[in-house]
Amino acid sequence: MSRRPRAVVVVTGSELVRGERTDRNGPFLAAEALSHGLAPARITIVGDAPAELEAVLREGLEADACLISGGLGPTHDDRTVELVAHAAGIELVVDEDLEREIESISRAFSERMRRPYADFAPGVTKQATRPVSARSIGLAGTAPGLVFRAPTGCVVVVLPGPPGELRRLWPNALASEPMKELLETTRPPGRRVLRLFGVSESAVARALDEAGGDGDGVDATICAREFEIHVDLVADAGAEERADELDAALTERLEEWLFARDERRVEELVLSLADARGLRLATAESCTGGMVAARLTGISGSSASFVGGVVAYSNEVKEAELDVPEELLVKHGAVSAEAAAAMAEGARRRLGADVAVAVTGVAGPEGGTAEKPVGRVHLHAAGPDGSLARMLDLPGDREQVRVRAAVTALHLLRALLTGSREEAA
Amino acid sequence: MSRRPRAVVVVTGSELVRGERTDRNGPFLAAEALSHGLAPARITIVGDAPAELEAVLREGLEADACLISGGLGPTHDDRTVELVAHAAGIELVVDEDLEREIESISRAFSERMRRPYADFAPGVTKQATRPVSARSIGLAGTAPGLVFRAPTGCVVVVLPGPPGELRRLWPNALASEPMKELLETTRPPGRRVLRLFGVSESAVARALDEAGGDGDGVDATICAREFEIHVDLVADAGAEERADELDAALTERLEEWLFARDERRVEELVLSLADARGLRLATAESCTGGMVAARLTGISGSSASFVGGVVAYSNEVKEAELDVPEELLVKHGAVSAEAAAAMAEGARRRLGADVAVAVTGVAGPEGGTAEKPVGRVHLHAAGPDGSLARMLDLPGDREQVRVRAAVTALHLLRALLTGSREEAA
Repeated sequence: MSRRPRAVVVVTGSELVRGERTDRNGPFLAAEALSHGLAPARITIVGDAPAELEAVLREGLEADACLISGGLGPTHDDRTVELVAHAAGIELVVDEDLEREIESISRAFSERMRRPYADFAPGVTKQATRPVSARSIGLAGTAPGLVFRAPTGCVVVVLPGPPGELRRLWPNALASEPMKELLETTRPPGRRVLRLFGVSESAVARALDEAGGDGDGVDATICAREFEIHVDLVADAGAEERADELDAALTERLEEWLFARDERRVEELVLSLADARGLRLATAESCTGGMVAARLTGISGSSASFVGGVVAYSNEVKEAELDVPEELLVKHGAVSAEAAAAMAEGARRRLGADVAVAVTGVAGPEGGTAEKPVGRVHLHAAGPDGSLARMLDLPGDREQVRVRAAVTALHLLRALLTGSREEAA
Repeated sequence: MSRRPRAVVVVTGSELVRGERTDRNGPFLAAEALSHGLAPARITIVGDAPAELEAVLREGLEADACLISGGLGPTHDDRTVELVAHAAGIELVVDEDLEREIESISRAFSERMRRPYADFAPGVTKQATRPVSARSIGLAGTAPGLVFRAPTGCVVVVLPGPPGELRRLWPNALASEPMKELLETTRPPGRRVLRLFGVSESAVARALDEAGGDGDGVDATICAREFEIHVDLVADAGAEERADELDAALTERLEEWLFARDERRVEELVLSLADARGLRLATAESCTGGMVAARLTGISGSSASFVGGVVAYSNEVKEAELDVPEELLVKHGAVSAEAAAAMAEGARRRLGADVAVAVTGVAGPEGGTAEKPVGRVHLHAAGPDGSLARMLDLPGDREQVRVRAAVTALHLLRALLTGSREEAA
């Protein structure tokens, strides 16, 4: 089994190192490195203090690959390019092609904002400055991503901090010459994923033990994520057979909760199930306040199936927009199986949908009672072939209760659309 | 001006360094360090490979404080205590008091699980092993948190990985002798925040330069976040006056875009403005698909002002639920100033709200035309005293367009509720 090349991730950002914001780029880059056959060794988050940042970059250059995020902006405290060049002992140059490109973007922007271009000019030259051996892999706004090989042999990738922009430029980094050369020396580990819903993390851990556990070139991780359990099996080259056996043994034990063997999110599965059957979807939300609709509409092309939703926060809106009878709300309360069912039927009828899911609950921290405590959520999914209902008592704070309720609503829709009744029972 | 003691955070966990899970302990410990007067210099996430972990710990010991999370479990790959002792050059001992305490917890656990105590015994001795100069600061499950001063002078705090347990033991770390001694040498920094909307990051950077820039004990960071610009001024002890001056100079230059001097999110401001005036709020969303409503309902107590919303994704729902005239949609299209205005008025009337905001746009990546490209968004906020409209051409991918449209919708509501018309023009 060959040693995998060592990758170090460096994330810069003062607000990140002060803990004011949680970094998303480090985990993304580490997971990508792993999936392409590199061994992510560390993720270091550092601020913009020059000495500290340069020291961390210098450590990064000792690895086979150093993936860097952030510090590419136009301002004085964006020092990544300057410092990584210094740490690597490479000269900086102003790239004239880049400068022209960034200038034209900045000019268009200054016109749209009706501000003088002179405000932008110093930033343009700064952002067009690169280590002499580096190549641009494309712009994010006015910041170029860069790739070069350092004198240490390390392949250095410099990417912008905003997560969307970093992810957009990352494929270009993978396609760059230095990175292609590095990845030719390794093989992506075999990776298998199991996505489960409705089972506990410890039950999955026990199933893994019973299936023989990991080791012998296969690494298993079990991770609870928004109420789903994600199992990843990563197999070194040569350990594929062992990984297949473990996969089969786990699948046998956990089949009833398995909903995906790939990375697609549950909202994508719901939309493709609906699309395949030509069914129109709608939502009726109280405690989740639009989160279910927002997740469905986050998927490009969702308008093929999703027609809309009602966020019925007050009882008046439940009555007026979802035809929930006032008597029902008086008798059973807004957080009840009856209200959830009426909301789902109301959404189908009023929004002209075939299938609707409704969520109503007590998200907290206020509003709980002995009878209906914080975390109590009723869900109801209804379609042309029947309906599924579910009651939950969710642990956690307001945000956790809402996220878990939204995820469960999407899984209820998935169960209804696949016809797997027993699973949603 | 005294230099603040340098703190390094080390987080161990294989699933964290592989990017399969996002670390929460690093940001927590860094923010805590900062608020107690330490300077968080870096957060390093590392797996359980012994050489890599020991190298990271060795770097941590060069700081004034090294705060370590994870790797305290009973199994063979939990190596934090052993490796930090080795890196610091301190002998390990089995702490007999600790061993008795952990044993009694493990015996109770083995009885509850109906498994022989022999399964647990090796883990008990392992978890009772500590560097000879370390003191336990309490148990999390069967793992003790530890504090000691290394020969380098560094105060080392070792805490369990599960975030709830780490947070529970952290106050004990602060109260320990070595940490108290360290914190006596420093003072918590003064921190001032400016939250801006409607101005570019580079214009704020220029204002900072014109105001004299940072330095002299004041650290300024400018951070673009979902279309807002967040400015943080962190002042060392003794630099308060300088920070006050910089704050005043920045405020003078940026006042028209300043919307908050604290950490409250725009949705909180919107809700308190509405609540103070007794106004009921509603939303009408197309491209944001429920994100505006979800953000408003994310705030506890939002039901005092927020009545509900309609996610009108299809034209049929815009007509049926928001009374947008079919002719209007035919003539101007669903992405138009006219449609946004009709949606907002429809939401007010249909949902019984005083104030409503509407968003309609092309989130992409499909659906753009020459006339209405991807990123084109129309917003309209309407209330009893008038209305505000806005058209945007947003850069970015589907998620960014949606997030930015949602943030702008919330700021439009805020502007309408504060009566600051010019700002939203």
